[in-house]
Amino acid sequence: MVDHTAVLIVGAGPAGLVLGNLLRAQGIETLIVERAEREKVEARARAGFLGPHSARVLVEHGLGARMLHKGLSHGVCAFRGGSGEFELDYGRLGRGGAHTVYPQQDLVTDLIAEYLDRGGDLRFGVTVTDVDARTATIGYRDANGTGRATGRFLAGCDGGNGVTRRAMPASATRLRQDHGVAWLAVLVEAPQSMAAVTYAIHDDGFAGHMARSPDVTRYYLQVAPDDDPETWTDDRVWAALDTRMRTAEFGPLRRGGITERRVVHLRSEVVDPIQHERMFLVGDAASLISPAAAKGANLAIMEAEVLARALVDALARDDHDALAAYSRTCLPRIWRAQEFSRWMVELLHGPSAATADAGFQRALRHARLDGLRDSHAHQTSFAEHYVGI
Amino acid sequence: MVDHTAVLIVGAGPAGLVLGNLLRAQGIETLIVERAEREKVEARARAGFLGPHSARVLVEHGLGARMLHKGLSHGVCAFRGGSGEFELDYGRLGRGGAHTVYPQQDLVTDLIAEYLDRGGDLRFGVTVTDVDARTATIGYRDANGTGRATGRFLAGCDGGNGVTRRAMPASATRLRQDHGVAWLAVLVEAPQSMAAVTYAIHDDGFAGHMARSPDVTRYYLQVAPDDDPETWTDDRVWAALDTRMRTAEFGPLRRGGITERRVVHLRSEVVDPIQHERMFLVGDAASLISPAAAKGANLAIMEAEVLARALVDALARDDHDALAAYSRTCLPRIWRAQEFSRWMVELLHGPSAATADAGFQRALRHARLDGLRDSHAHQTSFAEHYVGI
Repeated sequence: MVDHTAVLIVGAGPAGLVLGNLLRAQGIETLIVERAEREKVEARARAGFLGPHSARVLVEHGLGARMLHKGLSHGVCAFRGGSGEFELDYGRLGRGGAHTVYPQQDLVTDLIAEYLDRGGDLRFGVTVTDVDARTATIGYRDANGTGRATGRFLAGCDGGNGVTRRAMPASATRLRQDHGVAWLAVLVEAPQSMAAVTYAIHDDGFAGHMARSPDVTRYYLQVAPDDDPETWTDDRVWAALDTRMRTAEFGPLRRGGITERRVVHLRSEVVDPIQHERMFLVGDAASLISPAAAKGANLAIMEAEVLARALVDALARDDHDALAAYSRTCLPRIWRAQEFSRWMVELLHGPSAATADAGFQRALRHARLDGLRDSHAHQTSFAEHYVGI
Repeated sequence: MVDHTAVLIVGAGPAGLVLGNLLRAQGIETLIVERAEREKVEARARAGFLGPHSARVLVEHGLGARMLHKGLSHGVCAFRGGSGEFELDYGRLGRGGAHTVYPQQDLVTDLIAEYLDRGGDLRFGVTVTDVDARTATIGYRDANGTGRATGRFLAGCDGGNGVTRRAMPASATRLRQDHGVAWLAVLVEAPQSMAAVTYAIHDDGFAGHMARSPDVTRYYLQVAPDDDPETWTDDRVWAALDTRMRTAEFGPLRRGGITERRVVHLRSEVVDPIQHERMFLVGDAASLISPAAAKGANLAIMEAEVLARALVDALARDDHDALAAYSRTCLPRIWRAQEFSRWMVELLHGPSAATADAGFQRALRHARLDGLRDSHAHQTSFAEHYVGI
């Protein structure tokens, strides 16, 4: 038996769920299949900083009610280093625009509820085994056995290790950069310690502080790429945070239980093109980006909106121009985010190895930070890149 | 026999000559020794773009009359690439400020004449053989044999390969970066081909066009670091310039005789500190910077002014504070210039080798150029860095 639908979506993360909701709002038939179970999807803590464009897309399409109610507006970031701390009021600079801090698991929970409310078909616990981009068909395995599903179009929203990216032909380029650094990402059951996102630059390595919700805070610690997160005991995490955040000088952190610790490798990857035949990649399936500039979820939402509009043109008006231009529309925005993210990675981290020019690179990094502190024009440019897509 | 003076200056380039002139204006005794002969020093074609700060220093100290008369104001640069060309009117952006285009050999000729007019002692054909920073003493060799000279202070203005830098103690750090690329620098006897400095970005490599005087134009071509300039025949130079400057699309270049062709390695180096005992390094002796942002001569003039003021404090008022702070005053400015220069190098050049992420780096470079084209804030920040010290 083969299930038929108009748009077959693989993956129920922010990319697939925004796409599904926007298509359902236009009455287009959709089927989302997701490998994990609903409880797991609704608990997965990942991104949390939504840029103004993402917030606008969600609100305009009736997906932002709870985000507006519970999300926190955030427009200041701070840089802390050996020569002191400075705040950058990015929400008031340039074309302006603050972030909305709203944890990804809350957003995903909202999007699932709304999607089902719009009559969308959503199946959890479905493992896709093979993908045919030409016919927009997948084979899958679930608790009932195996099956096939086909759409007029197929959206690959299953992340950087997903099956849809692997179904792209060899002619598509996969451009990669390994930044050579890794972050230990921990979630702490405590309110944020500072009002602003704080980036601490230290010779021991980078440390970061980001609000997630009134009761949960995200911290990052630069670690060796092959570090085992289990060797980072609570004591070791707090000691490293105290040192790198210079708490003796700037005041203590609010401690709490550590509920997650995982090592994130700062890798970037871009597939080009991000479409093939009847298949279109969205979000992490199209490009992985280092978390240094909080761009991942925002790119996913941008791409989902572009693709939804193009699919509506194609399905409702038989106009395929926007669909044909999907890669051309999205890739320049993806690359600009990648370029800004690379700049942030270079700002936040010391040289990754004891290279011949490590001392030179370290001095340049200080100069970069001083330049950002002292130049209004540089801060304005930073602000536009930081929140923009 | 030992010559005695107040300030002993090694090297008669822009650094040493500006320093000597500023000190002579305050009646301070100086001796400049220079290895080359006067004719050679006055013919050496190097930098040509003076930033607003440099022009102000020269004019304020009575050294800018001929520059004001013969120099050309220049406030627009252009970037040319696969997706077209855009101009950046940097002289009108940010805090504003254009360059004055005035060839280094003309500036040096003016500075020598004025220095002698101010009663300064200047000896050509003097090779310094040894330097003692503690006693501010040099040994030298000239047409008459050998001799020694000593000052109350010693200024090392003899360039990146000079003897004064080598006399810095081992405790001073020498931070280096080899950018892995080289430029063939040619001088052409022809007027400029375009109104603006033009940076052409091409998969074959970078090409640059810069005015020097009404009759002479500087061109640059990215070449392999081990390239022999003699293999670059006139025909080969013009063919490469036509391709990379995309003359078929943007119009031809004005051809003329090629009077200089040399390979410049894009290397950067900073000594820290740039002072030791009674010795102070100025210009290329203190830091080498890639020519990508035309910062070398401008840093030299900034440092010469800072040092002159500090030496006047010390010699005329016995106040040694500014002299003690010379490194601390200059190094942050040197590092910001280095950081901007690095950014320009990354913008203008493809990846230097066939590394695993060469494709990713190439795409980032296009994104960087697009970002500069499209963002007013980014252009403003660029303008301030491009002309600022």
